[in-house]
Amino acid sequence: VTRQRPSIGLPGNKPLVILCRPQIGDNAGAVARAMLNFGLTELRIVQPEFGWPNAKAVAAASGAAEVLNGVRIFATLTEALFDVQHLYATTARNRELNKPIVTPAHAAALARDRCAEGRRVALLFGAERTGLTNDETALAEMLVTIPTNPKFSSLNLAQAVLLLAYEHYRLHGDIPPVRQPATQAAPASKAELQGAIDHLLQELDAVDFFRTPDRRVSLSLAITQMLERRALTTSEVDLLRGIVKELARGRPGRARASAT
Amino acid sequence: VTRQRPSIGLPGNKPLVILCRPQIGDNAGAVARAMLNFGLTELRIVQPEFGWPNAKAVAAASGAAEVLNGVRIFATLTEALFDVQHLYATTARNRELNKPIVTPAHAAALARDRCAEGRRVALLFGAERTGLTNDETALAEMLVTIPTNPKFSSLNLAQAVLLLAYEHYRLHGDIPPVRQPATQAAPASKAELQGAIDHLLQELDAVDFFRTPDRRVSLSLAITQMLERRALTTSEVDLLRGIVKELARGRPGRARASAT
Repeated sequence: VTRQRPSIGLPGNKPLVILCRPQIGDNAGAVARAMLNFGLTELRIVQPEFGWPNAKAVAAASGAAEVLNGVRIFATLTEALFDVQHLYATTARNRELNKPIVTPAHAAALARDRCAEGRRVALLFGAERTGLTNDETALAEMLVTIPTNPKFSSLNLAQAVLLLAYEHYRLHGDIPPVRQPATQAAPASKAELQGAIDHLLQELDAVDFFRTPDRRVSLSLAITQMLERRALTTSEVDLLRGIVKELARGRPGRARASAT
Repeated sequence: VTRQRPSIGLPGNKPLVILCRPQIGDNAGAVARAMLNFGLTELRIVQPEFGWPNAKAVAAASGAAEVLNGVRIFATLTEALFDVQHLYATTARNRELNKPIVTPAHAAALARDRCAEGRRVALLFGAERTGLTNDETALAEMLVTIPTNPKFSSLNLAQAVLLLAYEHYRLHGDIPPVRQPATQAAPASKAELQGAIDHLLQELDAVDFFRTPDRRVSLSLAITQMLERRALTTSEVDLLRGIVKELARGRPGRARASAT
C-alpha cells in the first residue's frame, strides 16, 4: 500500500496511542480529547481497570467522539501490537534499559518519517501510578521522556499524551512562528509624522510649555524621538493631531490662567 | 538590578502566569501543577469566580504547594500588571486585533530573552468559557495561539498553560534530543560474530539444513547478513552460541528422525 505523508487535518497514516492497564476511566476520555486536539485519532487500550464503553471517559472526552468511538480494547499488549512496526514507550524516569532515550520532539520527527514510509508507529503509555513495566517496554525501540522539573516531575496521563500529540501536530502543521495581522496598517510617512509633531510643538509654544529656548531644543527632540520610535500609523497620527487640537482648545467655559 | 539567565530548576527571572476571571477552582490547581512541572512558580489570579484559598485547587495541584502558596489575588488586571513589562496574551481564536500572532515556541524564545534582560514577562490566560476580552488583550504586545486541530481546537485552561510552560522549559533545559544509555554495550567484534556464524553453519550442516550446495551458498549469506545488520553485542553473540549449542543437542530422550 502506498501512503502519502498526511497533511494537517486530513486523514493519513499517523501514530496511534496505546494505553497499557489504565486505571481511571476519566483519563481515557481526557487522552481521547488531547489526541484529537492535535489530530491523532487511533486509541487502543490494553487491560483497562474500568469497563468499556465508559460514561466517565465520555464526559472527560468533551466531544472527542471520533477517537472514543474507534477505541479498541485488547487483552494483552502483544495483541494490541498486531500491526505496529515501531514502538516508542513513554517513561517518566530514566530506566536502566539498554535503549536510547529521546525527547518528545525527536520522537515526533522519527514518527513522522516512519509514517511517511507507510509504517505503523505506536506511542505507548503505562498505568497512571506505576508506568510501564520492563516487559512492556522490551519491544520498544526507544524511550520517550518528557523533560520536566526534576523537583516536580509527575505529569498526569492525559498531559503526557497531550505533549506528544502536540509535538506530532507541530511537525505536520508547518506553522509560521509569527503571523502579522492581516489588517496590519502601514506606518505613516515621515512627513505625516513631522506634520503632527510640528502641530504639537506649535500648540506647546502657544501655552509656553518649553519656558526657555534651551529646553525647547532638548524637549522637542525628545518628543520627536518618542513619537518616531512608536512607528505610528497614518490613522494614529491623525488621532494624535485630533487629541492635540482638542486639548489645545481647553475645557469648555474655562479660561486658561496666565503662566506668571 | 542585574539578573543572570536562570538555569534549569534554579530560581531566576521567569515568566509569570496571570489567570483572568477563572471560573473553576480545580483549574487554578491544575494550572499550578502544570506550571511547576515545567519550573514556573509565580501565579496571579484576577477576579476569580471562586474563593481563595480553595480546597479544590489544592487537590488538583497534586502537591504544587510552591506555586499555590505564592498565588496573589487581584481585583483588576491593571493591578496584577503592576510590574509587568511584557504581556503575551493566549487566545484560541484568531482575533481581529492589530497584533502579531505567535506560536508558543516563539513566545517562549522571546520571553527567555526578555527575562534574561531582567524584564518581567507575563503570560495571560482568559476565562475558561469565554477567553480574554478585547480590553484584556489591549495591553498585550502579541497574541499566543496554540496550533490545534481546527476541527477540535478546545484546550482546557491547564493544558494551555502546560504547553506554554513546556515550551519555556525546553528552551532552558538544553536537553539533548537523544541520549544513548549509559550502560550501552559495545558491538561484538566482527571476528566474534563470524565465530558464532561458523558455529551455526556447522550445526546446520550436521542436520542437513541446506540440502544442496547452491542453497548453502545463498542461505549462509542471508544468515550472515541477517546477523550482521543487528549489531549484536558480545554477550548477545555468546547468548546466540548457547542457543545454537543447546538446540543442536535436541530434546532430551528424543532421537532425531533421519531426513530421508
